[in-house]
Amino acid sequence: MNFITQNDINNIPKLVQEALELKASPLKYNHLGKGKTLGLLFFNNSLRTRISTQKAAQNLGLENILLSAVDGWKLEFEDGAIMNIDKAEHIKEAAAVMSQYFDILGIRAFPSLKNKVEDYSEKLFSAFQQYASIPILNLESSTQHPLQSVADLVTIEEHKTVKKPKIVLSWAPHPKALPQAVANSFSIWTQSAGYDLTITHPKGMELSPDFVGNATVEYDQEKAFEGADFIYTKNWSSFKDYGKPLTNHEDWMITQEKMALTNNGYFMHCLPVRRNVVVEDAVLDSSQSLAIKQANNRTFAAQAVLKRILEK
Amino acid sequence: MNFITQNDINNIPKLVQEALELKASPLKYNHLGKGKTLGLLFFNNSLRTRISTQKAAQNLGLENILLSAVDGWKLEFEDGAIMNIDKAEHIKEAAAVMSQYFDILGIRAFPSLKNKVEDYSEKLFSAFQQYASIPILNLESSTQHPLQSVADLVTIEEHKTVKKPKIVLSWAPHPKALPQAVANSFSIWTQSAGYDLTITHPKGMELSPDFVGNATVEYDQEKAFEGADFIYTKNWSSFKDYGKPLTNHEDWMITQEKMALTNNGYFMHCLPVRRNVVVEDAVLDSSQSLAIKQANNRTFAAQAVLKRILEK
Amino acid sequence: MNFITQNDINNIPKLVQEALELKASPLKYNHLGKGKTLGLLFFNNSLRTRISTQKAAQNLGLENILLSAVDGWKLEFEDGAIMNIDKAEHIKEAAAVMSQYFDILGIRAFPSLKNKVEDYSEKLFSAFQQYASIPILNLESSTQHPLQSVADLVTIEEHKTVKKPKIVLSWAPHPKALPQAVANSFSIWTQSAGYDLTITHPKGMELSPDFVGNATVEYDQEKAFEGADFIYTKNWSSFKDYGKPLTNHEDWMITQEKMALTNNGYFMHCLPVRRNVVVEDAVLDSSQSLAIKQANNRTFAAQAVLKRILEK
Repeated sequence: MNFITQNDINNIPKLVQEALELKASPLKYNHLGKGKTLGLLFFNNSLRTRISTQKAAQNLGLENILLSAVDGWKLEFEDGAIMNIDKAEHIKEAAAVMSQYFDILGIRAFPSLKNKVEDYSEKLFSAFQQYASIPILNLESSTQHPLQSVADLVTIEEHKTVKKPKIVLSWAPHPKALPQAVANSFSIWTQSAGYDLTITHPKGMELSPDFVGNATVEYDQEKAFEGADFIYTKNWSSFKDYGKPLTNHEDWMITQEKMALTNNGYFMHCLPVRRNVVVEDAVLDSSQSLAIKQANNRTFAAQAVLKRILEK
Repeated sequence: MNFITQNDINNIPKLVQEALELKASPLKYNHLGKGKTLGLLFFNNSLRTRISTQKAAQNLGLENILLSAVDGWKLEFEDGAIMNIDKAEHIKEAAAVMSQYFDILGIRAFPSLKNKVEDYSEKLFSAFQQYASIPILNLESSTQHPLQSVADLVTIEEHKTVKKPKIVLSWAPHPKALPQAVANSFSIWTQSAGYDLTITHPKGMELSPDFVGNATVEYDQEKAFEGADFIYTKNWSSFKDYGKPLTNHEDWMITQEKMALTNNGYFMHCLPVRRNVVVEDAVLDSSQSLAIKQANNRTFAAQAVLKRILEK
Repeated sequence: MNFITQNDINNIPKLVQEALELKASPLKYNHLGKGKTLGLLFFNNSLRTRISTQKAAQNLGLENILLSAVDGWKLEFEDGAIMNIDKAEHIKEAAAVMSQYFDILGIRAFPSLKNKVEDYSEKLFSAFQQYASIPILNLESSTQHPLQSVADLVTIEEHKTVKKPKIVLSWAPHPKALPQAVANSFSIWTQSAGYDLTITHPKGMELSPDFVGNATVEYDQEKAFEGADFIYTKNWSSFKDYGKPLTNHEDWMITQEKMALTNNGYFMHCLPVRRNVVVEDAVLDSSQSLAIKQANNRTFAAQAVLKRILEK
């Protein structure tokens, strides 16, 4: 099995439970990965994702080998290309060769934020799926970050007090243009897990309809916050005016005043977070902030997914 | 024992058999490396060599620690040097210190392709041999790539149908100047293993006589291919006009037409390969291509060599 | 427990004995670290420290995960900062998150050598101590290098012939401005271990009084060397004229003539060392040089410290 989108998991609430069981006994399946190797291929830098996935692998007795392609390893993707310029290796060979060295291949590759069609076609992941013969693990692709979403669902499960909490995904300011991947995945995974979701953002910052799904879109941030149990905050650049960051919206920062509108709601963020830009200190440092716990749950989310792959 | 050239192995066919046995049971000697550490020192980037050697070490229960010297760590090699410029460490200390931390030291260091005498003296490897007190493993030096050659011999052994197949090493076009190491090693190892070899290349692209050995040199590529069982393809820059790439020889690319001249021969390449420059798609994608299998055999070649070193 | 300064160890001679016992039986406590992970965070490059600490961890069955922050990961340290410029993460989150992934966190961070107050306040280590909830291991900070000092004490213990040998710390020339950390630590640790210390250096190169402690300062290098059992050599830049290197003092190089003034003394250096600038070949290559042995003892120094932390 691959783990690239929510469609690769047929029973998401069960996966969340499995992650919680692993959190209670991280070393219980310590021999499941024995003699096997997880390759971790990073086309972009990573801190949380890398370490939590390495920890998850270690907990399962699975060796891991890192490959940083941050500074190069330009792959050719075109069929029939005459490779006489800068690209020294074709995806066909790269994927086939790594399929022999590894038992599972994790890949991180951010979007260009320049070419919407190319980014949203998930060209790189599609090519690896096509040419690799081992399971592919999404460590954040152009449009999705599913391991983050599983960790987020685990965190919600740990803290929710009603069966169907009100969950709000709120856009927040940021000085740089960021991918839509975390927001896309949070939207689609919470809905796939059976939750109702409200998304709030300034006009023009609509996510792709494919990821909005059946979520309620509310342009009034304060109205969206009313009665919310969880406020999930994330900046993203424009999908419509593709890759363009939205400036002059500092008033979308998450503040104590806004959190007071919620149902004693929790604050969530995938980290890293820019303090007093995305969220003010008082919220992030409050007991209602789950950001640090979400980061911890990354390990068990990855471990639950790796366990499923190993058991196939 | 060191593993730097073919002379470090007294019975090459037996080493090939050992690699095949490890391929059948990779974890059989899983405790041989227990409590020991392989240091992997890269002065140049590596994908296949690094991963396959790490895998080989893991299969033997041998820890490995990577050292990238790609971005620096300039060592002083001169005796008596007054080190008041840029070099912060002498090979004497570097080799002696690493000999204490590691049980085996693997090193990759490409040639300059500017100074033939220096490159062909294997200055760096000689210095590490002189000052280190642990076995040295060649992960590709200025003039040789013996782990590649062992993997190539394993692949030939798996696919040959006659005791003495006709093996042809063919030069192929490439846009950049490449080392002679893979070609040198393939020539000397196949001959050391008891095979007859024909080398074909344009005039002026002769390899060093020390590595040509008793191979037949045939300047007519098509003639060389006649009746061949294995076509091993590789670009190299000039040995005579040292380090100079040969351009305007696109017609040396390996094509289906040329492969048709062989005895239903196999195509071999050490990868990465530039498609439709070195070899056309139709050959690389055919069932006669062994390139992916060669890459897989890198693991077991390295494992066979590491096993021998550990058993000494 | 943290391991940041000599004050974190209540019985230094006992720690030295523990390191010697581990050197005799490196794998004796092979299961102590099982299921635990050491994070190794490098804001500056490292060879000996990294490898010896990784080896120490492996010997204890402790997993390790490397984080290189050499090329970036700029952390915000200011309380209340509005993070809208270059820093993407606050130390508060960084430390809290890593405290969940790791059981111990080793950190290396060199001084700026530009701002004495900031460097000597050990801002980064203080912040990690404040915000992390796991033990912090000093892999060389702005002002101290305690793992080096433990290895140095182990080496002295192995070679001393009298209970209280005469130990001399001598400044030596170097083309670049270097931190005071190794010299500071050697001074304070040898004194904390109960040894008498003489420090010799040109006028103006006084170390911080906090680190000189009760050592004798002797500006005449030759006089200082008389009757010495151990000559510990190290360059450092000025503490007074903060960060300024001292040039035109080539005559402070350690020579055979100077070593002849000692009581058949040993030569010590933490490496890397610039030959014929800091010390002449004849001294470094003599049987009295302990530099290579010191580097080996780094492993067991780190292992003794990690063992203590794990046993807490």
